[in-house]
Amino acid sequence: MKNAVGREIPAHISGISNTRLYEGTSAYNPAHTGAGKKLRAGKPHTDKILKSIDEAIEKTGLKNGQTISFHHHLRNGDYVMKMVMECIAAKGIKDITIASSSLSPCHDFLIDYIRDGTVTALESSGLRGQLGKYLTKNPGALKKPTIIRSHGGRARAIEAGELHIDTAFMAAPTCDRQGNATGRIGKSAFGSMGYAMIDAAYADKVVLITDNLVNDPVYPYSIPQTQVDYIVPVEAIGDPEGIASGAIRITKSPTQLLIAEYAAEVMDETGVLKDGFSMQMGSGGASLAAAKFIREKMEDQNITGSFGIGGITGIFADMLKDGLFKACYDAQTFDTTAVKSLSENPNHIEISASFYANPWNAGPIVNDLDVVILSATEVDLDFNVNVITDSNGICMGASGGHSDTAAGAALTIIVVPLIRGRLPMIRNHVQNVVTPGDDVDVIITERGLAINPKRTDLIEKLKDSKLPIMKIEDLQQLAYAFVGKPEEIKLSDDDRDIVAVVEYRDGSILDVIRKPLV
Amino acid sequence: MKNAVGREIPAHISGISNTRLYEGTSAYNPAHTGAGKKLRAGKPHTDKILKSIDEAIEKTGLKNGQTISFHHHLRNGDYVMKMVMECIAAKGIKDITIASSSLSPCHDFLIDYIRDGTVTALESSGLRGQLGKYLTKNPGALKKPTIIRSHGGRARAIEAGELHIDTAFMAAPTCDRQGNATGRIGKSAFGSMGYAMIDAAYADKVVLITDNLVNDPVYPYSIPQTQVDYIVPVEAIGDPEGIASGAIRITKSPTQLLIAEYAAEVMDETGVLKDGFSMQMGSGGASLAAAKFIREKMEDQNITGSFGIGGITGIFADMLKDGLFKACYDAQTFDTTAVKSLSENPNHIEISASFYANPWNAGPIVNDLDVVILSATEVDLDFNVNVITDSNGICMGASGGHSDTAAGAALTIIVVPLIRGRLPMIRNHVQNVVTPGDDVDVIITERGLAINPKRTDLIEKLKDSKLPIMKIEDLQQLAYAFVGKPEEIKLSDDDRDIVAVVEYRDGSILDVIRKPLV
Repeated sequence: MKNAVGREIPAHISGISNTRLYEGTSAYNPAHTGAGKKLRAGKPHTDKILKSIDEAIEKTGLKNGQTISFHHHLRNGDYVMKMVMECIAAKGIKDITIASSSLSPCHDFLIDYIRDGTVTALESSGLRGQLGKYLTKNPGALKKPTIIRSHGGRARAIEAGELHIDTAFMAAPTCDRQGNATGRIGKSAFGSMGYAMIDAAYADKVVLITDNLVNDPVYPYSIPQTQVDYIVPVEAIGDPEGIASGAIRITKSPTQLLIAEYAAEVMDETGVLKDGFSMQMGSGGASLAAAKFIREKMEDQNITGSFGIGGITGIFADMLKDGLFKACYDAQTFDTTAVKSLSENPNHIEISASFYANPWNAGPIVNDLDVVILSATEVDLDFNVNVITDSNGICMGASGGHSDTAAGAALTIIVVPLIRGRLPMIRNHVQNVVTPGDDVDVIITERGLAINPKRTDLIEKLKDSKLPIMKIEDLQQLAYAFVGKPEEIKLSDDDRDIVAVVEYRDGSILDVIRKPLV
Repeated sequence: MKNAVGREIPAHISGISNTRLYEGTSAYNPAHTGAGKKLRAGKPHTDKILKSIDEAIEKTGLKNGQTISFHHHLRNGDYVMKMVMECIAAKGIKDITIASSSLSPCHDFLIDYIRDGTVTALESSGLRGQLGKYLTKNPGALKKPTIIRSHGGRARAIEAGELHIDTAFMAAPTCDRQGNATGRIGKSAFGSMGYAMIDAAYADKVVLITDNLVNDPVYPYSIPQTQVDYIVPVEAIGDPEGIASGAIRITKSPTQLLIAEYAAEVMDETGVLKDGFSMQMGSGGASLAAAKFIREKMEDQNITGSFGIGGITGIFADMLKDGLFKACYDAQTFDTTAVKSLSENPNHIEISASFYANPWNAGPIVNDLDVVILSATEVDLDFNVNVITDSNGICMGASGGHSDTAAGAALTIIVVPLIRGRLPMIRNHVQNVVTPGDDVDVIITERGLAINPKRTDLIEKLKDSKLPIMKIEDLQQLAYAFVGKPEEIKLSDDDRDIVAVVEYRDGSILDVIRKPLV
């Protein structure tokens, strides 16, 4: 069966109960109620502090076949998942589903636990590193395809009851003895706990793992004590080097700078750049670099924006500090400058993934975005965007907030080099769709820009522009002229070779990732 | 059938589906999951702002037989319930259940809407004023008894799905155009929105009614935009005089001051007063006055407390400002000094009613209380406490956080005058039980103190005290010696004359309020 973005989806995917196909970016309206929280009678004067992760696993009653969750706020510096999985494996518990908000190369150790049957399923925003390669080449290593969700989609799935978490194990940079926790301070501070907030609210059991247990009340808290069952103090929850490297800097690549300049110019010429505008920049090179040119234009034209959303970097935190924006909403903090900003600047507001992007609440903040600038691993003639697989079909990226912000923003700009590694980045059909073309308005490369033909308003606004605007087919031909037409890679059509199911943010099936035949 | 506190409860109460009887303060452990939230797909760039309350009622689809909720943060200055009910009545909508977090004398107008069938049921923390009198004398005016819940019990009932709210109408002193709302600022600022937070999270539809709609992002927000469907700007949401009178001052009554001094002395002699202790003071005269003596002792002995909880008054806010406590948790702000403190002092922390006192989460903050000092309308020989009816059996009070804090605190002190209006306040059996004697440790009057015989540890600690400690029976006799033995009032034993059902915080039936025969 073909879904509304033209992808062939099997009527039934082994191990996946979901059969709802993608019908359009705002086609589906939920008419049901969400998941209920597990009720538990917290007893007065209970000591929540345990001696070890092992004791926590005992107390939660974790057993074969259950689902546990982690957040990825520690990024590539995370120690917590490994500490927990070592204990689980040592106890001989098998058939665990790991539902992490995302996975980083530091989680490559999972390959061993997949091989020995400790872990049999994954749900994540993305698959990267050796784990991504391993699973792409060995889809049968897990008992069912990995479910890929956007950040808003994951919050939705948890709140809607589609992803039920038995126990959430949660790295907490600082918490008090009741369990009020924050990521703002502590030796492993990582900033916002936006993804963790949802798991804490809905998991049957919540275990905080902290390297900074304090006696005084912690506030503001990201996780409230009312959601915390146990606390385990450990030596270190992460490697500071991997958690947040210093300030992310703007690229020096001339190609990326040119793309970034075009993006700022599109915003200017389409009238987005005006007092009170709101924006998000992705964390890729060209999208981040756009900040430099946007800032120049804002200063030149004396423009004050309303708010930014993110994924917040020091680059945005500085714009906030300098008064270019009134506020920023932060579900994930990207560098040490931004962590400092969150803990010091009252206009830097921590939000949950649901507040950020859940399509099934009364209005996440992405719904109020004027513009978003996003990267891509590749795009296609229908303006569809891939950010999950590379040109060889290997899982190496993450869905993140890509489709969420694209759906919410009035203007969605994709920045992508025309050619990468001698491969043209505008395909006839992207390897995998993460963001449907219906939500993509402008694709910008260093050689030219293409406007989605459906956005006749933008075409009209930019008709006298000096920007190198062309048809997307012509942009593709330009790339072909340089590097030739690429060969399509061959994929297995055996349904047992489905590596992952890409859910759209509303939970419908947008695409499946199939094993490449090489 | 008699419940565990010795109250005779009918096996079935007409209109009340709940038949679970009170079995003890921590007897019941929930094994189920709570209510799910109504899912709704908030569309990008939707304008939530409506022209009138009438339009909001249309949009929410409110109809006969539904339940609507209000919060009582505007106290006796609330305009919002009246504005909403006038619209509902004008539209001819009938059979409405009002589930307000509490009711004040300014809501006496409800009598008219009860008479004409617009309102047919109430759920509240209390009943006061003319409405309390009217319903006590005319139980048949509503189609079923009013359900009385503690603040923690109400949060529990909503989260557990026992109280389902179709539409919450919510006074918001300040909100932005997305619906992020706060009670800290604005001409009708009332401080914490602790009760409102629960309704906003669980109601099917949420309507904010505000007299301060602002364009810039509001933060910190008490109600997030993700829970807000509509916003209605109005001229005024309340009368500032009724919302928060200036700073509440400490009583000059010698009786109350003496009781307060005894309370502080009990805390001192039982070892509660030490570094890191936590406390709550009720808002009654003697309990508030205890602050004066506690403060003196803390300063003399150089003690720094951990946190206070409330119901926060300026008296506590000043102790916080002066460093006597490290933090305070505020679910309801009582006076203008405390409102100012909440908006200026980062150690003054706004919390929800669930964080405050919900017995069915992983640990509300009342569970960490060392001591609470609470008032009473009357107490009895079993140490049971009444705060809902007066000696004539008329509903005139509210359950509030009384039973919640009594259950959580390691030491629960009740302060009550021995005699009030020529009536002894220690009864054989209180008219109605709101807080079971099992959770009451010390009763203090101006003539003497009684320790609950079950607290042998306290009896031992205070055995050499110079405090006038006596048996509760002797205290009662002392009152009788002054004013004689009071006549018991007669109550209707007709089950159709049940005015209200008093739920314990865990949802079990603790007592019924019956119509007095006079």
